[in-house]
Amino acid sequence: MRHVLYRGVIPWLVCITFAAATSSFAQNLLPSWNDGEAKKAITSFVTTVTDASSPDYVPPSERIAVFDNDGTLWTERPVYFQLLFAIDRVKELADKHPEWQTQQPFKAVLENDMETLAGSGEKGLMELLMASHAYMTTEEFTQIVKKWLSSATHPTLHRPYTELVFQPMLELLNYLRANGFKTFIVSGGGIEFMRPWTEKVYGIPPEQVVGSSIVTKFELQDGKPVLVREPKINFIDDKDGKPICINQYIGRRPIFAFGNSDGDLQMLQWTTLNQTSKRFAGIVHHTDGDREFAYDKDSHIGRLDKALAEGAAHGWTVVDMKKDWKVIYPFELQ
Amino acid sequence: MRHVLYRGVIPWLVCITFAAATSSFAQNLLPSWNDGEAKKAITSFVTTVTDASSPDYVPPSERIAVFDNDGTLWTERPVYFQLLFAIDRVKELADKHPEWQTQQPFKAVLENDMETLAGSGEKGLMELLMASHAYMTTEEFTQIVKKWLSSATHPTLHRPYTELVFQPMLELLNYLRANGFKTFIVSGGGIEFMRPWTEKVYGIPPEQVVGSSIVTKFELQDGKPVLVREPKINFIDDKDGKPICINQYIGRRPIFAFGNSDGDLQMLQWTTLNQTSKRFAGIVHHTDGDREFAYDKDSHIGRLDKALAEGAAHGWTVVDMKKDWKVIYPFELQ
Repeated sequence: MRHVLYRGVIPWLVCITFAAATSSFAQNLLPSWNDGEAKKAITSFVTTVTDASSPDYVPPSERIAVFDNDGTLWTERPVYFQLLFAIDRVKELADKHPEWQTQQPFKAVLENDMETLAGSGEKGLMELLMASHAYMTTEEFTQIVKKWLSSATHPTLHRPYTELVFQPMLELLNYLRANGFKTFIVSGGGIEFMRPWTEKVYGIPPEQVVGSSIVTKFELQDGKPVLVREPKINFIDDKDGKPICINQYIGRRPIFAFGNSDGDLQMLQWTTLNQTSKRFAGIVHHTDGDREFAYDKDSHIGRLDKALAEGAAHGWTVVDMKKDWKVIYPFELQ
Repeated sequence: MRHVLYRGVIPWLVCITFAAATSSFAQNLLPSWNDGEAKKAITSFVTTVTDASSPDYVPPSERIAVFDNDGTLWTERPVYFQLLFAIDRVKELADKHPEWQTQQPFKAVLENDMETLAGSGEKGLMELLMASHAYMTTEEFTQIVKKWLSSATHPTLHRPYTELVFQPMLELLNYLRANGFKTFIVSGGGIEFMRPWTEKVYGIPPEQVVGSSIVTKFELQDGKPVLVREPKINFIDDKDGKPICINQYIGRRPIFAFGNSDGDLQMLQWTTLNQTSKRFAGIVHHTDGDREFAYDKDSHIGRLDKALAEGAAHGWTVVDMKKDWKVIYPFELQ
């Protein structure tokens, strides 16, 4: 009898312990989020779609979550970090390009004349991007990005860029993965600028990173197959481009999406509007000028205007960084 | 003392049992492969790269395996199944297009005049593809493909197309996944033609399917976000296009690749040539005219010529379907 009891009790004890651990685990995965509407909306959604007895249950294979990167997972001010990379890269290459001393927008970059650079418009910016992002193999570019990230620091926060990721969002990514979600980045940033570091920093592997891209060309160089990066845009993964890329790269409609600007509007629409099953859309609202940067509808970088208005109409969750987040960056916990 | 012994022995027993199970598990995962050079090359490669004590060990995150689809995972004769889909689709739509009665290549399709259709060249084929693959939303197209697959049968084998997949390759996909590999399709076929069924048939989810694509356009139709398929090629994932797509979609160089035709040559080169770590390239050689189809260098569909010659020079593994495979299709096991 004792043996029977023993055999019967052990599995129960294991189950109870495991269930308790799972539940507190979930709660503990969002320690940097203050208790409030945003955290509640997230945990309520995740609890519902992972509850096998709920009519809103979603099987694990369909738990696709997409995140914008700039301004959603890491800081994007004073300008997108990738633009700062392009500027540093042009300065590094200047010796080999004496013509840049007199040619815009390169002259402006070399003279740290940001006003003239901004005034060079889309054409100037594109020239800057191509000069810094093309004319090498994909593997060479990866090494260039890694080297830059290992030494460059933010102009005002004086930290390496990969330390300027949002601690609460790292926790959210882990929380979703612990609940069977597959997490993707869907960013206007360069796909090959992100892939070298997203696995280490966010736990998101290269094959789950979607972004803007330039054209590449296959070549055998001395018998070694390489892809050469050409100075030509392949696709811009922003605005309308986001749902297009989600469909092209992922091939499933996400059930969970997070962005922070009007560039994410169509991705949030694609995820949530007029769908037959439960969906979640979140917006990071940059409200904390003390700990990070405060901006929305009047900002050139990460403008948030239409998406905020539409979010209010559709019940999307708006995260108030100042109120909802205990800390902004991981180093604040040290 | 007995308790100490007990506590010490149990974990060992568990470990030994598990190790034995794992080993025989691996062997049992390739039951339709005859013992021969091909099977040996596959198991030897997998055993080596998954052995943590080997200098050729590869961590799980880098175990990327890519497979061509037509002729590698399923049959591609008498013509690519997607072309048969296009033909059936045009016939279904003919009532709404009276002009097709006199307009090529549609007239040829409606009259089952395959010679004239073949003679219409790339331009004719493209018109046929666009008429059958565009002018609807991505979700409508998915439903059309699913409906076709549920009723259409192969012209000579008289089986649904999804039954004409290669049993030994299904086993190989499982074997690789059981060894921590992530399996991808990289096919010249349409990405949205494959995604509706690859998870069920191959265990490969939509987000791990790479293929040729057409342009899509984001629209809000009565408040519902849709992607409309436009009659314009986005990218052809064949030949040079395969390494380009592997880099674009997956972002890592595979360590294992399988193809069957010259369209896979660059993918096999990209995977194996002049790499610093151990790689595997395999070619399915269609040698079995009795059980499937026999063809190679003189075939218009799935021509295998250059890749076979280059494979011999580089030590790629060539699978002789007649000699290496006990069965071709899953239904032979029933």
